[in-house]
Amino acid sequence: MDGRRILGIDPGLNITGYGVLEVAARGPRVIEAGVIRGKTRGCVPSRVKEIYDGLTEVMSSCRPNVVSLEKLYSHYNRPTTAILMGHARGVICLAAAEASIEVNDYAATKIKKILTGNGRAPKHQVQQAVQRELNLKSIPEPADVADALAIAMCHYYLVEVKSGIPASSY
Amino acid sequence: MDGRRILGIDPGLNITGYGVLEVAARGPRVIEAGVIRGKTRGCVPSRVKEIYDGLTEVMSSCRPNVVSLEKLYSHYNRPTTAILMGHARGVICLAAAEASIEVNDYAATKIKKILTGNGRAPKHQVQQAVQRELNLKSIPEPADVADALAIAMCHYYLVEVKSGIPASSY
Repeated sequence: MDGRRILGIDPGLNITGYGVLEVAARGPRVIEAGVIRGKTRGCVPSRVKEIYDGLTEVMSSCRPNVVSLEKLYSHYNRPTTAILMGHARGVICLAAAEASIEVNDYAATKIKKILTGNGRAPKHQVQQAVQRELNLKSIPEPADVADALAIAMCHYYLVEVKSGIPASSY
Repeated sequence: MDGRRILGIDPGLNITGYGVLEVAARGPRVIEAGVIRGKTRGCVPSRVKEIYDGLTEVMSSCRPNVVSLEKLYSHYNRPTTAILMGHARGVICLAAAEASIEVNDYAATKIKKILTGNGRAPKHQVQQAVQRELNLKSIPEPADVADALAIAMCHYYLVEVKSGIPASSY
């Protein structure tokens, strides 16, 4: 039986990063990762459709058991960015609901804390932790992929490991 | 040939109002209006799916030519509400993109100004204008329906009337 799979997503209207981890006996491993780039800059309806179509395809081919997202807060540096990210997040939640996949979200500080031990760690330090923990040759690029994998890793440590079920029993 | 149809939507995660206007020789008339109520309070993926399914059905049965929305601003009283509305707006934009329907959005002050002559008019005054302009027996209820019709009316006055094409020629 295949291990449980976690789809981490870093949503953005211009570029959305994603990464699928599979829980295995020796720890999580990357099954697939990439980005959905906007071909139609500025046009929100076309952009959300690209994100929705892209992630629906990833969900259909990788069959994750859970989707992991970063929580959205209103005290972002640019609140308008948060609202636009809300649009992307809306269609991601829809794709997950249509595929009956559970969605969990985690605060950015929680993700950083889990990965590095410091809730205010700089981005690069989080990305280095992703590389190390997943035994990757280099930091995944673009940064949106590394960020998506960090979000998936946070769910892995908080839920999959904590649940105490040996990975091999999945 | 049928007249052009405008679908006005007032998005909200708990209750989404909508109203379809048809442009006719004597002015716009209401074809259909209602609300999509949340059955699954608090669960964003289920809520966006309800909104998406409901509006996809309205678009499929009423075949609007254009969708009219209110612009979202970050300086809402509660920015978190704006982010959650962004989720609803994301799936509305997706439904429109999938049906190849153009989306237009208008600032709240513009909608109020067009309907009442005053960009800071209270909600009730806007709703009374909707009732009067559409020859309705009473103000549509709940308020989300009246608000959705106001958003559709704004597009009607700014685009359909302004374009100078006689309604009968549609």
